[in-house]
Amino acid sequence: MSTSTQLDALTAQQLSLLKFDANGLIPAIVSDHVTHEVLMMAWMNKDSLAKTIETGKTHFFSRSRNKLWLKGESSGHVQDVKSIKTDCDADVLLIDVEQHGAACHEGYRSCFFRELNAGGADWKVLGERLFDPKKVYGK
Amino acid sequence: MSTSTQLDALTAQQLSLLKFDANGLIPAIVSDHVTHEVLMMAWMNKDSLAKTIETGKTHFFSRSRNKLWLKGESSGHVQDVKSIKTDCDADVLLIDVEQHGAACHEGYRSCFFRELNAGGADWKVLGERLFDPKKVYGK
Repeated sequence: MSTSTQLDALTAQQLSLLKFDANGLIPAIVSDHVTHEVLMMAWMNKDSLAKTIETGKTHFFSRSRNKLWLKGESSGHVQDVKSIKTDCDADVLLIDVEQHGAACHEGYRSCFFRELNAGGADWKVLGERLFDPKKVYGK
Repeated sequence: MSTSTQLDALTAQQLSLLKFDANGLIPAIVSDHVTHEVLMMAWMNKDSLAKTIETGKTHFFSRSRNKLWLKGESSGHVQDVKSIKTDCDADVLLIDVEQHGAACHEGYRSCFFRELNAGGADWKVLGERLFDPKKVYGK
């Protein structure tokens, strides 16, 4: 594994099992380590996964900005990694975290705050905003 | 939305919010509706999502077999849909289900049965097999 960070040989060997897609990315589902609630899904490349393991805080790869980012770098709402799992095909990650603040940049604890409202005109919004995005991100 | 199944106009309007990727697919995370445990992730196209809504059982699109499939069509381990959520970017689905049998074709309840074993030589296997894949799939 060629990454800019330092991983021990055994961890690097384990990561060689993982299947990254044609763009070098793997989907990473993030869930709360106590409630198991799914908080978000984002993409990792090898570097962001190595950085996540090295620092114990989730790092992802932004496809739109084409760069590695630390979750919470603007908001302070970081995620402390509790465990990293993979699925039977080794092409998806499931990361249990302790979420500081809220996972969603729109102010909700989970990014999955909208539910299909069968027979209704729009998606039903669940839960309450924990913060005001304008105040946290200043935009 | 052009699908082969019948959806009412309001549901079709809600689905128009969703962003499918360049291949017409969206990742669908499946979790247990009681424990919130993540069971699996697979991909849906518009047809498989419409079929999921219409029947109340999860249907996915297989990228390797290039066809729509009913989860549990071989094993009988179907998933009854309890809710369908989407995230802030509307490019991922989270589907709460009642899982019959086990989600994983390798016999585990969840596909995420392997955990990164920091400092260890291999991934740590969690949980027990609920069924023997050879008996269920006959191969």
